[in-house]
Amino acid sequence: MTETYRRIVLAARPEGAVMLQHFRLDTQPVPKAGEGQVLVRNHYLSLDPYMRGRMNESKSYAIPQPIGDTMIGATVGVVVESHNPKFIAGETVVGMYGWSEYGCSDGAGLMRVDTSHVPESAYLGSVGMPGMTAWYGLNKVIEPKAGETIVVSAASGAVGSVVGQLARLGGCRTVGIAGGVEKCRYVVEELGFDACIDYKAAPDRKMLAKMLAEATPAGVDGYFENVGGVVMNTVLARLNPFARVAMCGLISGYDDADGQVPIENPAMFLVARFKMQGFIVSDHLPLWPQGLKELGILVATGRLKYRESIADGVEAAPEAFMGLLKGRNFGKQLVKLF
Amino acid sequence: MTETYRRIVLAARPEGAVMLQHFRLDTQPVPKAGEGQVLVRNHYLSLDPYMRGRMNESKSYAIPQPIGDTMIGATVGVVVESHNPKFIAGETVVGMYGWSEYGCSDGAGLMRVDTSHVPESAYLGSVGMPGMTAWYGLNKVIEPKAGETIVVSAASGAVGSVVGQLARLGGCRTVGIAGGVEKCRYVVEELGFDACIDYKAAPDRKMLAKMLAEATPAGVDGYFENVGGVVMNTVLARLNPFARVAMCGLISGYDDADGQVPIENPAMFLVARFKMQGFIVSDHLPLWPQGLKELGILVATGRLKYRESIADGVEAAPEAFMGLLKGRNFGKQLVKLF
Repeated sequence: MTETYRRIVLAARPEGAVMLQHFRLDTQPVPKAGEGQVLVRNHYLSLDPYMRGRMNESKSYAIPQPIGDTMIGATVGVVVESHNPKFIAGETVVGMYGWSEYGCSDGAGLMRVDTSHVPESAYLGSVGMPGMTAWYGLNKVIEPKAGETIVVSAASGAVGSVVGQLARLGGCRTVGIAGGVEKCRYVVEELGFDACIDYKAAPDRKMLAKMLAEATPAGVDGYFENVGGVVMNTVLARLNPFARVAMCGLISGYDDADGQVPIENPAMFLVARFKMQGFIVSDHLPLWPQGLKELGILVATGRLKYRESIADGVEAAPEAFMGLLKGRNFGKQLVKLF
Repeated sequence: MTETYRRIVLAARPEGAVMLQHFRLDTQPVPKAGEGQVLVRNHYLSLDPYMRGRMNESKSYAIPQPIGDTMIGATVGVVVESHNPKFIAGETVVGMYGWSEYGCSDGAGLMRVDTSHVPESAYLGSVGMPGMTAWYGLNKVIEPKAGETIVVSAASGAVGSVVGQLARLGGCRTVGIAGGVEKCRYVVEELGFDACIDYKAAPDRKMLAKMLAEATPAGVDGYFENVGGVVMNTVLARLNPFARVAMCGLISGYDDADGQVPIENPAMFLVARFKMQGFIVSDHLPLWPQGLKELGILVATGRLKYRESIADGVEAAPEAFMGLLKGRNFGKQLVKLF
């Protein structure tokens, strides 16, 4: 009897909110690694907001995910069979095998990682793409100077938590924005941010602006944008002259068929002479070795903390992904496969 | 009998559109230059969109213009009396004497200019603040590379005309946006732009987008924004990855009490990973000598062309300014005082 494995495929494109019906659980026979190939048993799958864009047919920076194909995603796992001279069985590797218990490929894009001081799952978070996203946006777009005030939305998340901790290590006043008392407490007490604003505790826009003003008495010099919407417009109105905004994501609008909440007052660009720049970390691969090395050292030495939200089993991935889009996760959203 | 001169003062703050009632013509005795002072007879006054912001009480990058004070503005004129060792009678100087036939000051901020190869009025336009605005925004924000496509709105205006000609000299495909057949013909035939879109000829947004697409077959790499509104959103949707937007002005919304047309789709920042940066040329005074020198050489050698729209007499300034805000001027708007 052939051994089988499970995967999640895209069943249909969502019109608005993502629902269970857009996914399908599928079972396949575990392949044999062919000549030059590697077979990997995936331990963890990373769930990330960018996947929402791939589910659409519409123009995005990402190529649409074909219907019926395995949902795209980063994985970390162990090589179980290798006919590729670059890898040997037993090695831990990060790859893009998707929402799938096994992956088999020629090894292109597969990266061997060292788990002696950094847990394997961290290579999908603080020492992986989310960490690099934080590192690039903060260091290369915002370019913070010690003493400046840096604000980051989705501050307890995989990207935001790294942004704030790096800014703090760089001597900045660091203010997070997150949803809920528990997340805000974590951001301040565990991650060491100077303050965290619970946007869910603001009854209206005016109060959110007041809370932000109290947390940023000297205004805002850098803003790392993960969410968009009302939070974005509130922070933009608080920017100091020559502020820098790194536009990383707009998760609040990803499920909205009409797109996003507009940037309501373009005249702010003139009043505050600020810069807003969108970026995608995969455009900057040459910087990854430097960034990942720095992040790995910080994690290994305990100076960069993180939290994971772990769903159990590939069949739990769709529900966990829907929760991620709604901010129900707390920390980096992973799926434990084995 | 004492000689008198005329000036325009701010009589009231506009709520919406600027009207004649917001100004008042005033007559004053011509002062005597005191110890250390210079008396200047102004030949030309420059009218510029930034003045609209000064008329408001609301937050702007500029300090509000006090009610009853001379309207602010740059002037070029001739020193008629000097008790300041730095200036002698007969010299041509650029100053900020406002909407006024005469100016008297201690000479701070006054700049002697050479009219042997550059006409005096050009120091209020292509070789003055508007020219520097174009030079800075193009060279320091957009940073165009030869072969790229650069779009500029208000292309026949004092700033836009310089932006496009500098981009063209730098080897870029240069596309203007202007209102009316006559302006567009001027932009292409006189200024040498590769194309110019008459936004008034577009019956709707969709057609404007189509005209833009035809004029920019390889997309848009740099955009110099002078107007805002529908034109802005249409160009933003056409940006190539890694495009740069220099936000210089939003004249289409200056008369609107509620401010500006929003940037309707912030997700474009991610799709095109573009940068948008607001700037004000007075923040960058150390670059003015370099920029003005380059611009002066280009004007003196005929490689940088310009056109002036000249109102006659200080009493004509309010009407001319209202026309400027509505795009009724054609080229740099000046007022000839003497």
